[in-house]
Amino acid sequence: MKYAFADRVRYLQSSAVRDILKIVGKGNVISFAGGLPDDDLFPLDGLEDAFSRVFQTGKKSLQYMETEGYRPLREVILERMSKKGITGFTSDEVLVTTGSQQAIDLFSRIMLSPGDVVLTEDPTYLAALQVFKSYEASVVAVDSDDDGMLPDDLERKLKQHNPKCIYVVPTFSNPAGRVWSLERRKQLINLVHKYKVVVFEDDPYGELQFTEDEVYQPLASLDDGTHVMYTSTFSKTAVPALRTGWIVGPYQVIRMMAQAKQANDLHSNSLSQQALYQLCTHYDLDAHINHLIKVYKSRMEVMVQCLEEANLPEVHFVKPKGGMFLWLEVEKSLNMTSLLNDAVDRGVAYVPGEPFYAGTPKTNTLRLNFTHATPEKIQQGMKLFVPMIQEEMEKRLVNVK
Amino acid sequence: MKYAFADRVRYLQSSAVRDILKIVGKGNVISFAGGLPDDDLFPLDGLEDAFSRVFQTGKKSLQYMETEGYRPLREVILERMSKKGITGFTSDEVLVTTGSQQAIDLFSRIMLSPGDVVLTEDPTYLAALQVFKSYEASVVAVDSDDDGMLPDDLERKLKQHNPKCIYVVPTFSNPAGRVWSLERRKQLINLVHKYKVVVFEDDPYGELQFTEDEVYQPLASLDDGTHVMYTSTFSKTAVPALRTGWIVGPYQVIRMMAQAKQANDLHSNSLSQQALYQLCTHYDLDAHINHLIKVYKSRMEVMVQCLEEANLPEVHFVKPKGGMFLWLEVEKSLNMTSLLNDAVDRGVAYVPGEPFYAGTPKTNTLRLNFTHATPEKIQQGMKLFVPMIQEEMEKRLVNVK
Repeated sequence: MKYAFADRVRYLQSSAVRDILKIVGKGNVISFAGGLPDDDLFPLDGLEDAFSRVFQTGKKSLQYMETEGYRPLREVILERMSKKGITGFTSDEVLVTTGSQQAIDLFSRIMLSPGDVVLTEDPTYLAALQVFKSYEASVVAVDSDDDGMLPDDLERKLKQHNPKCIYVVPTFSNPAGRVWSLERRKQLINLVHKYKVVVFEDDPYGELQFTEDEVYQPLASLDDGTHVMYTSTFSKTAVPALRTGWIVGPYQVIRMMAQAKQANDLHSNSLSQQALYQLCTHYDLDAHINHLIKVYKSRMEVMVQCLEEANLPEVHFVKPKGGMFLWLEVEKSLNMTSLLNDAVDRGVAYVPGEPFYAGTPKTNTLRLNFTHATPEKIQQGMKLFVPMIQEEMEKRLVNVK
Repeated sequence: MKYAFADRVRYLQSSAVRDILKIVGKGNVISFAGGLPDDDLFPLDGLEDAFSRVFQTGKKSLQYMETEGYRPLREVILERMSKKGITGFTSDEVLVTTGSQQAIDLFSRIMLSPGDVVLTEDPTYLAALQVFKSYEASVVAVDSDDDGMLPDDLERKLKQHNPKCIYVVPTFSNPAGRVWSLERRKQLINLVHKYKVVVFEDDPYGELQFTEDEVYQPLASLDDGTHVMYTSTFSKTAVPALRTGWIVGPYQVIRMMAQAKQANDLHSNSLSQQALYQLCTHYDLDAHINHLIKVYKSRMEVMVQCLEEANLPEVHFVKPKGGMFLWLEVEKSLNMTSLLNDAVDRGVAYVPGEPFYAGTPKTNTLRLNFTHATPEKIQQGMKLFVPMIQEEMEKRLVNVK
């Protein structure tokens, strides 16, 4: 039987990250590939207590729920958001989703017709690229530096492409670990008001901030509530297994997304939503996040130290100020996609940078995750990774001679 | 700000059923409208024990999981399916979804391009119609009687429309409570092999069978594993809150759906999948289902008795052999959509039949749910419903005179 799939499946490919995860998960490879938090840090006791509190509320907690999500959880989310400067929304303007991935997908579903343009950073979150392409949209990369999108190029592309939306991860981006400056954030907001375009602000990592002295204001806190859709998740701060994220934004868009969600899955797991509400109200989630920050920051420093000590020629990176990833650019002629098999043979895995690009990919880039492995494993893994780069560089030198 | 939504949103409407649920849920109305199981019957203790067992397995249970779902749960699902005669599949051919609603949606996403045709029964599950339309497919109704689709009309429409798939709920359908005869099931399978079309068999209610002496073989058990996608859910047999369903079918289609799911939400709630595995292996789910059957059957009989005693003229229904719904056809001139407000004012709610139709709607139809209200509430509710129909009929007679 030959199955007559829809045209759009040609844009659906299994994501490289998850396929690698699958293979690596089975072997003895030290993996810096996934985007996993550390299992050992999960608040198991807090969560068990939270579920127990829900069960005590009785059997009604097991019934169907409204599509938009458990309202007390939406209220708690708004409270947490207001601490980030995102205010002026009611719980009707919050939609609970199955992870922030579903927020990206539902937003795209209601926004993107085939041929519509989405502007993104480059590199950017590859599963977002996958979603945009699955709705047959065109993705156009905006030139960026370490401070964010370049306003001139952004304005040029707003004029040229009349895009439906701009997708950004302005704080500790995946994969590049980039943080936008306040000035660039404000410039973006000015431009989207001028050109009447919606910004989709993806902020899964914002709470994992390693420096105490700086404040990174979300785009949604700089807007008047009409142009920014802000999404985040409990996956990095509490646990991934509950697949609970949310999106906040203007009611018209949220309402349309809720209608798409009704068609998609009626509503997200409601027992978990109630448990997360209990967790947020009976457990010190902020203290837990502070602990995560301490542990992840020290792991990041171990990884950075390994790189600094190796003093690899032609290797560039910016020390992450938060998040889960370290982004490396190595010597121009090294193809990190081709080298992945070699690395896995040596016992270490990373994600090649190539699939994260919307525009022309830089194949001499890669992403390293520093949150899942212990400091010892990070050191072991880097002792496998560094020599590979050194040997490849030496081969290049021999060839040049 | 005017939001430039995608073209497909014109097909996205909040489902009538769920909007009614929202309004009715707030008042003192006795509702036969929703498709809710009875909260009081939920296996709360079994579930609490199941979650506790998962928590005992440690923190790894809270991590991300592969898109396809928790493999031990997929194995348990296959075991349960084999008891229904659905055999020959491996766990690679099972995809765990966020309710069977997501199975319908993902299947449509990979299968339907704008303009593609889906054949359905008439009336049929309205949230499936909503999904097909949201992918801009055309839905064509096949003529049916109480035994299922009429093979002649089905073959004519297969030839005429070259459809991408046929969507059916052959056992205790929603809304009509219909059961297909074995002969009709076999005729459908023959035709889809002849015309090389995929059947999507939606079977959320199959396990809620009120008669012991009959066996309703799923279409998937009559196929060779290539033409039928079979979906079901734990929402009606265990609890809805966990939003856990599944789909089984040929690997090529399942793999493509998994790729769509990766873009949609990465994976479904994995803690709940593990808990359902524990529930299936440490709790007597079949005994629980037998208890549900007993309670629901007696409620159905109370509702039927109320109707039989009222002896309403021009009212037709078939006594359900399972499932959750009673389908009524009243006198031709009565518009049950218009009468809904009157009914709610009287204190009772139902779902008008109109939105369930893919073709020309019969506005003199309605769906009554008998699983959520207690027998006392059913009697009270029917005492409000029956006089409304009687009075409307009397008005008609006066007008005729």
